[in-house]
Amino acid sequence: MPTESAMNGGIGTESYAKNSRYQGGAVETAKEIITEGINKNLDIEKLSSTSVDTFRIADFGCSTGPNTFIAIQTIVEAVRKKFETELSDSRVPEFQVFFNDRISNDFNTLFASLPPERKYYAAGVPGSFYERQFPKDSLHFAHSSCTLNWLSVMPQEILDNSSPAWNQGKITYSGEKKEVLKAYALQYAKDLDSFFKARAQELVCGGLMAILVPTVPNPNSDLSSITFPSYDLLGTCLIELAERGRFDAAKVDSFNLPLYYTYPNELKAIIEKNQDFSIERIEVLNVRSKHQTDPDPKAFSLAKRAVFEGLLQEHFGNEFMDELFDLYAEKIKETAVPSNPKETSMITFVLVKRVLRMT
Amino acid sequence: MPTESAMNGGIGTESYAKNSRYQGGAVETAKEIITEGINKNLDIEKLSSTSVDTFRIADFGCSTGPNTFIAIQTIVEAVRKKFETELSDSRVPEFQVFFNDRISNDFNTLFASLPPERKYYAAGVPGSFYERQFPKDSLHFAHSSCTLNWLSVMPQEILDNSSPAWNQGKITYSGEKKEVLKAYALQYAKDLDSFFKARAQELVCGGLMAILVPTVPNPNSDLSSITFPSYDLLGTCLIELAERGRFDAAKVDSFNLPLYYTYPNELKAIIEKNQDFSIERIEVLNVRSKHQTDPDPKAFSLAKRAVFEGLLQEHFGNEFMDELFDLYAEKIKETAVPSNPKETSMITFVLVKRVLRMT
Repeated sequence: MPTESAMNGGIGTESYAKNSRYQGGAVETAKEIITEGINKNLDIEKLSSTSVDTFRIADFGCSTGPNTFIAIQTIVEAVRKKFETELSDSRVPEFQVFFNDRISNDFNTLFASLPPERKYYAAGVPGSFYERQFPKDSLHFAHSSCTLNWLSVMPQEILDNSSPAWNQGKITYSGEKKEVLKAYALQYAKDLDSFFKARAQELVCGGLMAILVPTVPNPNSDLSSITFPSYDLLGTCLIELAERGRFDAAKVDSFNLPLYYTYPNELKAIIEKNQDFSIERIEVLNVRSKHQTDPDPKAFSLAKRAVFEGLLQEHFGNEFMDELFDLYAEKIKETAVPSNPKETSMITFVLVKRVLRMT
Repeated sequence: MPTESAMNGGIGTESYAKNSRYQGGAVETAKEIITEGINKNLDIEKLSSTSVDTFRIADFGCSTGPNTFIAIQTIVEAVRKKFETELSDSRVPEFQVFFNDRISNDFNTLFASLPPERKYYAAGVPGSFYERQFPKDSLHFAHSSCTLNWLSVMPQEILDNSSPAWNQGKITYSGEKKEVLKAYALQYAKDLDSFFKARAQELVCGGLMAILVPTVPNPNSDLSSITFPSYDLLGTCLIELAERGRFDAAKVDSFNLPLYYTYPNELKAIIEKNQDFSIERIEVLNVRSKHQTDPDPKAFSLAKRAVFEGLLQEHFGNEFMDELFDLYAEKIKETAVPSNPKETSMITFVLVKRVLRMT
């Protein structure tokens, strides 16, 4: 079954809008590098020869804001300035911005919080970014931040108790089983390939795409050194709830986070396989040092709740969510996970250009 | 203050989605005439000379469906067939459809009910259709059904107890006061002018717009013969609630429905004032005879609730809505308003083409 649940909607205490400072940090950190990328790599002359009256931008996996608005603002300003400088004020196109996320995303909240002073026409586009969402050659700039670590579906073997990749008692691939990691990695490569194939159709030649991908450092020989203490701890909480009789232990076995953290070398190899894009820049952003995850256990628990609650509700029902995330906050406090240096997640920035297809 | 509330969201008993059969009747009735209009008036050769890779359609005031999906399906099919017939299968463009309504519209419900088998890319566009919502020259076909009877704001003099146009004790202009009717009509002309000015910018030259406008028959000399028994009855219910002590009587005086029903001659004159459009067809649709308003009092009350509840809640608070619409259903039953021949609302269809601007 495809993973369909989106980030927590609304603007309440448990909403993504109120609990996405870490993701916001990524966007803030990327501002400069995106502006630089547009200055250096957007070929205005070439684009304008095909008469761009409207410059179309899409943010894939936008959720509910405000991060998406900050990212879009950066892009619109950089492109506008480039048009003004290289051509003239009168040649600046109008901007149309498409906010994309899953159908279950809270678009009502997104629309209600659109910046009133924005200088672009806004639209929401519901649907999975692993598929086509836009007409051919209709976008000039694509953006996606902190979303390309989500799998489109869970690989079946993970959930199959007769498979060597059965991930019993765990909710992610952190651990010793190589088969589990492999199943996740294969699905990820397939998904990312779908993402790039779809975007290659949608972007005009010369169009740019900036992606901020949650990754882990390039591994040495020992892939099993990749661990996610914070996810393991969430798994432990689920097991404890099962022990308290809230649901069957088998429920935990059949639940896995559809998340995979690729590493820069693997990411680069997947993109290079797609001949429609050239990599203009790839680098690891130093997000963590500038935008520390909130060390307060309750805030840390809330941030994870905003992201995973929908997914967990679908599987376990919604009556255990308060208990689960209270327990999680407690365990976070006991183990001091947020400041644990073993948590290896980082963000890799990639800027690609849609090249002319050789057919 | 601009009127901001939208139709009732969701898919429950009181939702617009479940209570818009009359509006659906208009869309059904217009199917044939829209298809005909596209066949006769869409200049494919001319459009395709400007290389239409994507054919862009917008529905202004779409609400939550299903009516909007039926209308869009009709338009997409007619355009597709025309391309196939006049050019070739390979020249059929991709379709992108924009669903527009106020920011407070329930886009989440709209997106969740998008037809899965649709052959177009969908997007939602939040914002008032009395203002620009799209980039210049970006639309090929615009549509709007049963929405162009809403005013963008209430004219101030209606609410001013020192003005001859003060509409005390009434919630619409049905009645004897000419000043009230005049204030409504002036605001309407202004709003419709804004609508056409905005669409003229957004539509490409040769682009078409089909509007289904709730109207009344062309009046004779006696404008005050225009009456709306069903709205008057709703006003009576509000006064009765004030008498029951639910709210102050002044609350009713300061409430007016921001609805104006123009008549074919007036509509034509307003459109003709705008030099950017040529009227290709204008005619009254025989909706009522084919799609009678539900004569069941409860259903009639629900249909009005789906449309006006948001507006009434804003003004009177939400605690009286059940009482109000129960009372309304009772009064409908007593007076047999739904089958009252004095209710003169009908629907006028207009097809316009965006002509080359003479500058």
